[in-house]
Order: sequence, then structure tokens, then C-alpha cells
Amino acid sequence: MHKIDISMGKDLFEENDKIAKENNELLKKKNIMAVDFMGSIGSGKTLVIEKIIEKLLGKKKVGVIVGDVTGDDDYKRIKKYNVPVVNINTGKECHLDAHLIEHALEDIDLENIDVLLVENIGNLVCPADFMLGCDKRGVVISVTEGDDMVRKHPLIFQISDFVVINKIDLAEYMDVNVDKILRDLETIAPKKVFLTDARHDKGIDELVDWLIWKKN
Amino acid sequence: MHKIDISMGKDLFEENDKIAKENNELLKKKNIMAVDFMGSIGSGKTLVIEKIIEKLLGKKKVGVIVGDVTGDDDYKRIKKYNVPVVNINTGKECHLDAHLIEHALEDIDLENIDVLLVENIGNLVCPADFMLGCDKRGVVISVTEGDDMVRKHPLIFQISDFVVINKIDLAEYMDVNVDKILRDLETIAPKKVFLTDARHDKGIDELVDWLIWKKN
Repeated sequence: MHKIDISMGKDLFEENDKIAKENNELLKKKNIMAVDFMGSIGSGKTLVIEKIIEKLLGKKKVGVIVGDVTGDDDYKRIKKYNVPVVNINTGKECHLDAHLIEHALEDIDLENIDVLLVENIGNLVCPADFMLGCDKRGVVISVTEGDDMVRKHPLIFQISDFVVINKIDLAEYMDVNVDKILRDLETIAPKKVFLTDARHDKGIDELVDWLIWKKN
Repeated sequence: MHKIDISMGKDLFEENDKIAKENNELLKKKNIMAVDFMGSIGSGKTLVIEKIIEKLLGKKKVGVIVGDVTGDDDYKRIKKYNVPVVNINTGKECHLDAHLIEHALEDIDLENIDVLLVENIGNLVCPADFMLGCDKRGVVISVTEGDDMVRKHPLIFQISDFVVINKIDLAEYMDVNVDKILRDLETIAPKKVFLTDARHDKGIDELVDWLIWKKN
């Protein structure tokens, strides 16, 4: 986060947490389970969400909020599934916040969805500070980011409920040791971990089982 | 960047720009050419810097400043080249700023380096707003981040002098079209572009020729 006056920063976070709590109460009232997907640019957040939507087609009604600094690339990718989707362009902000979600929720028919998937801005630092009001928060990382990213960005893993290590099919082409990532997670932020290759639909069933069907 | 009071935000940026200018004047006085390497987590910034150091061994005296939220992984990677290196841990900050660089410069013997390479925090949003006082700013992106990252983060490319598209050897394993990235750059931010595969030492000579030897 940027340096801000401490008193002001405190107000900013307090205000955010207050709205996040209200968002969560609204979602609970409507029986909607919401997940905040954080993670770096290109880690595969959108594709993981797309695959989850595919798995839930005809079983659960999914709504999506996609956050990007600018543009509607991810929005279009989700739109093709014919599910309710809201695009948030933050302009220069490096994270979503509860207030942006509050407004996005006004644009979704909450009576008509069971699951809300939120794609946060591509960033491993700032989103950690801003709760959105989701039931679960997860980080999607990719093996192509290197095997030191957990040690380098411990906070976002520590405040998350689960971690998706994506693009595991590419580990063999990279100098990346997945076991090292797993060991770092075990030490720094022991969370539920999913190994996925979203492009080839590997590991997504396990994620959906845990996230949606509450198996394991 | 985070939302901050406009008047306060203005002061913050003005103050940063002022210190950046002072840093640049100091570096110029010492005949040091400085480069700010920005880019997302895992794009290969550290490895690109390592390869540049290798190319310059015995030809130019290199100093390095590495920025990370936490830890000293990158610091250690640079240290092995036996060049002066300063590690900046920002704690929760998602970018380096001129003030941090000002202090880092106090820890380097400026009489004894010709080239300063600065590795910014892994982030495609926030570093764009904070000049450090370097002569050139560049973005290192990786094909594994997908081919839409220029459209999604135009500002950082627009304020840069050059762009390194790294890990081009992996393009064939990904659904990534390098030409699409090049077209987006041409439209959104026409800059000097280098295609590199730092791991296999491809394209680094061209980058060093342009950056250090001023060829092309």
C-alpha cells in the first residue's frame, strides 16, 4: 500500500471493513456463497473462475465480479458463459475494496445467484489489506512466477483461506520447484492448497469440491 | 494506488518527484547511468539484471538496488556477483519511491560504480506513479502472464522507455501470442522492445547494447 497518514489510513481500513461486513451480511441473507480470488497478473485467476463456472453449469447459479485496472478483456471471457457479470475498472487502484463491491452488488440480481466469484486486481500486495465481504479468500499463483513468491509476499497467503498453485504443467519447463513452494506455505501460511493446470482442466474438480460442495 | 485525499496525494507525488530529481542530479554528478526495472512478480526482473551484470563484468562497474516487500532472496542472487548491492524491504509498500532510493544511495560507494540497476517491487500498477531518479525506466513482462497485460495496464508501459518481453521460449507452451503483445505496445505505448529468454541468455546482448553501449 502507499504511505498514508496513519490516522487517515486507519479510517480508510476501518471504513472498508465496515462495508465488507455489510456486504457479507447481505450475501448471507441472500444465501450466496462468495469467494475473493486474489493473485498476481497472469496467474490464471480468470481461467480458474471460467473452469469453476463450467463445473457448476446447471448445478449452481453463478455470478461474477471482475476487477481490472482498465479494459473489459476478463469481462468478455466470463460473459460468454451467459452468467451475470459486473466489470469493475479501478483506473489506477491496485486492489478492489468493499465499497466497489457494494456498488457491483447493486448491478447483480442477488435473488438469482447461489455463488459469487470475485476476481481481484492482479497484485500480490495490496488486495490483502482490503476485505470485500466474501466468505472465502484465496490466492492463485502460477509456477511461472518462480518458487520464491510465498516467502516474498507472506501476508496475502497468511490472510487467505486457500491457495491455488496453477500452471503446474509448466513446472518441468521452468527452474521451479513446486515442493519448495509447498514447504514455504507449510511454514509461512499453512492453508488448503490445490495444484491445478486450469488450461487442461486439472485439479479444478478438487477445488470445486472443497469450495462449493464442502467436501474434505 | 490507494485512494488518498487529493491534496495530500498531490503533496506525496510532488515530494517524491522532488527527491527523484535530486537523486538523478547526484547520479549524474557521479557519472552513473541508472535504470529502474519495473514489472510483475516472476516476470524475470532479477534474472535479467543478473545477465546484464554478467555482460558487464570487467567492462563497467555495476551497483544494484533490489526492492522486495520482504526477504533477501533477490539480494542474495545479486550478491554472488560480488557487486555492491543494497536490499530494500518495503514491508507493505507495493513500490519503491525516491526517498527509499535516496537512502539506499547512501549505502553504495558512488565513486566506484558506473551503472546502477534498480529492481522495483513486483507490481504492474503502483511503481508507475513513483519516479526514482533513474535515467531510464523499463518494464519486464513475461509471456506467461498472458497476451493481454499491456491493454490491462497501459500506464506503466506508457511512462517507460523500454519494454522487455521475457521467457519467449515458453510462448509455444502457452496460449500466448507474442505478436498480439507487440501490436498492443505499438498502439498503446510504442517503445523500444526487447524479446528475451534470460534463462538461456537470449536477447540480453541487444538490451545491453541499447541500454549501456547506446547502440541502435
